[in-house]
Amino acid sequence: MISVTLLGAGNVATHMFKAFSEAKGVEVKQWYNRTYSSISSYKNEVDIIDDLKQLKNADLYIIAVSDDCISSLSEALPFKNRLVAHTSGSVNIHDLDKKNNRAVFYPLQTFSKNTVLNFSEVPICIEVLEKENLKLLKSIAKALDCKTYKVNTEQRQTLHLAAVYINNFTNQLYRIAHEISDAQHLNFDILKPLILETAKKVQTISPYMAQTGPAKRNDKKTIKRHLKQIDNKEHKAIYELLTNSIKKTHGVPFSKSNPSKN
Amino acid sequence: MISVTLLGAGNVATHMFKAFSEAKGVEVKQWYNRTYSSISSYKNEVDIIDDLKQLKNADLYIIAVSDDCISSLSEALPFKNRLVAHTSGSVNIHDLDKKNNRAVFYPLQTFSKNTVLNFSEVPICIEVLEKENLKLLKSIAKALDCKTYKVNTEQRQTLHLAAVYINNFTNQLYRIAHEISDAQHLNFDILKPLILETAKKVQTISPYMAQTGPAKRNDKKTIKRHLKQIDNKEHKAIYELLTNSIKKTHGVPFSKSNPSKN
Repeated sequence: MISVTLLGAGNVATHMFKAFSEAKGVEVKQWYNRTYSSISSYKNEVDIIDDLKQLKNADLYIIAVSDDCISSLSEALPFKNRLVAHTSGSVNIHDLDKKNNRAVFYPLQTFSKNTVLNFSEVPICIEVLEKENLKLLKSIAKALDCKTYKVNTEQRQTLHLAAVYINNFTNQLYRIAHEISDAQHLNFDILKPLILETAKKVQTISPYMAQTGPAKRNDKKTIKRHLKQIDNKEHKAIYELLTNSIKKTHGVPFSKSNPSKN
Repeated sequence: MISVTLLGAGNVATHMFKAFSEAKGVEVKQWYNRTYSSISSYKNEVDIIDDLKQLKNADLYIIAVSDDCISSLSEALPFKNRLVAHTSGSVNIHDLDKKNNRAVFYPLQTFSKNTVLNFSEVPICIEVLEKENLKLLKSIAKALDCKTYKVNTEQRQTLHLAAVYINNFTNQLYRIAHEISDAQHLNFDILKPLILETAKKVQTISPYMAQTGPAKRNDKKTIKRHLKQIDNKEHKAIYELLTNSIKKTHGVPFSKSNPSKN
C-alpha cells in the first residue's frame, strides 16, 4: 500500500483527497492544513493535522497550496530525503526545498468546489529531478486511473499557458456571449448545446479541421454586419482580433474590408 | 402526418434529413438539390429531385442552402401561399419571396459532415411572419425532440453573433493552444479533458461564476511570465486583450503592470 500525505485545503487538495479515498493501492496517511477547521469535516475519514511536527512517514507528500506558498511550506517541512511534490502548473520544481526529493504532480484540469469531477479523466503531468521517483508517481496516478505524461519544466509551463487560452479565455468568450444574449433578453440556455458541441468536436478532429464560420470562409458581408451589431468596444476588439487570427490560420486573404483596418 | 420537403444538400440539410427520417409524425416528402448527385445516395429513402417543377405539395418547405442563395431559391419556387422557411441565423426573413408564407427554422448548432450529432440536443429558433404558422413549426421541432425558442429577427441575429464567439472564436483559442503545445512537442490530448470540462462547467453555472485563473485573481507574476513565454505577436495580443477583458468583468483593478500598457 502506497501512503500519501496531502498538504493544503483548496480545490485541488479536496478533489485529490476524494479521488485517493476511492483508489485502490493508495491510502491518504494524513491531511495537513494550517487552518484545522477548513478540513475538519473529514476527520472521521483521515488523520487531520494542523501542525507540521505531527507529520508521519509517507511515501509521498503532495503540496497542493497556492503558488506563492509552495516554497515556504516545503522549507518548513521537518524532515529530509523524502519525496515531496507540488501540484502547480507554473511553479519551478527547484522552488521546492532541496532537503527533500523533489517532484511535480500537476493535474491539468479546472477544479471547482461544487463541481463533481471524474478524476480518472484528469491527465497528470509528472516531473522529477531523480529518475527513480518516476515509477512511484506513475503508480499513484495509475491508482487514480489517470493518464500520465512525463514533462519537463518548460513543457509544464507551456501547458499552463495553453490552459489559460482554452479555459480562462474560452470561458471569457462564453461570458461575452452571455452579455450579448442577455442584452437581447435571450435565454443563455439556447447557446449551451453549441458550447458543448464545440468542445466535443475537437476531441476527435483538430481545431484546424473543426473551424467554420464567416472568418474562415471570408464572408465579408456577415463580418461587416456583426461588427455593426456590436456596441461594446472591447467586444468589437475581440471580434476583430480573433477574426483576423482565424483568417491568418486558414490563409484567407486580408482585403480592404479587413476589420482590423476599420 | 406532417410533410416536409428539404431544399439543399449541405450539412444542415443532411443532418435534418437524418433526424426527420427517425422522427415520428413527420415525413420528408421530397429532397431537392440542383445537383442530383450530391444527394443521390439517399434515393432509396426519399424522392430525390433536381428540378423545382417536380416539387409536390408539402406542409413545409425548408430552404437549407448557403445564405447568399436563399433569396433567389425562394423566388424560383413555382408555387405560392405555402409555408417556406429558411434555416439561417443571419438572413432576414423578408429575404424570402413574399409570394409564400415566410418563416425561419434556425437550428443553433455546429454541423459537420462526419460528426454524429444527437439532433434532439439542437435548439430550434423559430421566427414567423404569420402567427398561425408557429404551431406547425413547433410541432415539427417537437417531432425531432428539439427545444424551441420563438425569437424575432434581431434576437436571431444576436444569437448568430454570440455563436461566433462561443464556436468560431473558442475554436480558434483551441487552435492557438494546439500551436503553443505543438511547439514544445506536447501531445494535444493532454489538453482535451480541460476543453471538455470548461464547456461542461457552464452548463450548470454561469460563465461569470465559472471563471478562474491569473487574470481573475490579478496574479501579476503569472501574467508577466506568460507574456514572456509567448513568442507569437498575435497570440500575445489575444492574451492581453482577453486578460484585460476578464479583469474588467471581475472588477480587477488595472495596475502599472497592466499588460496592455507593456
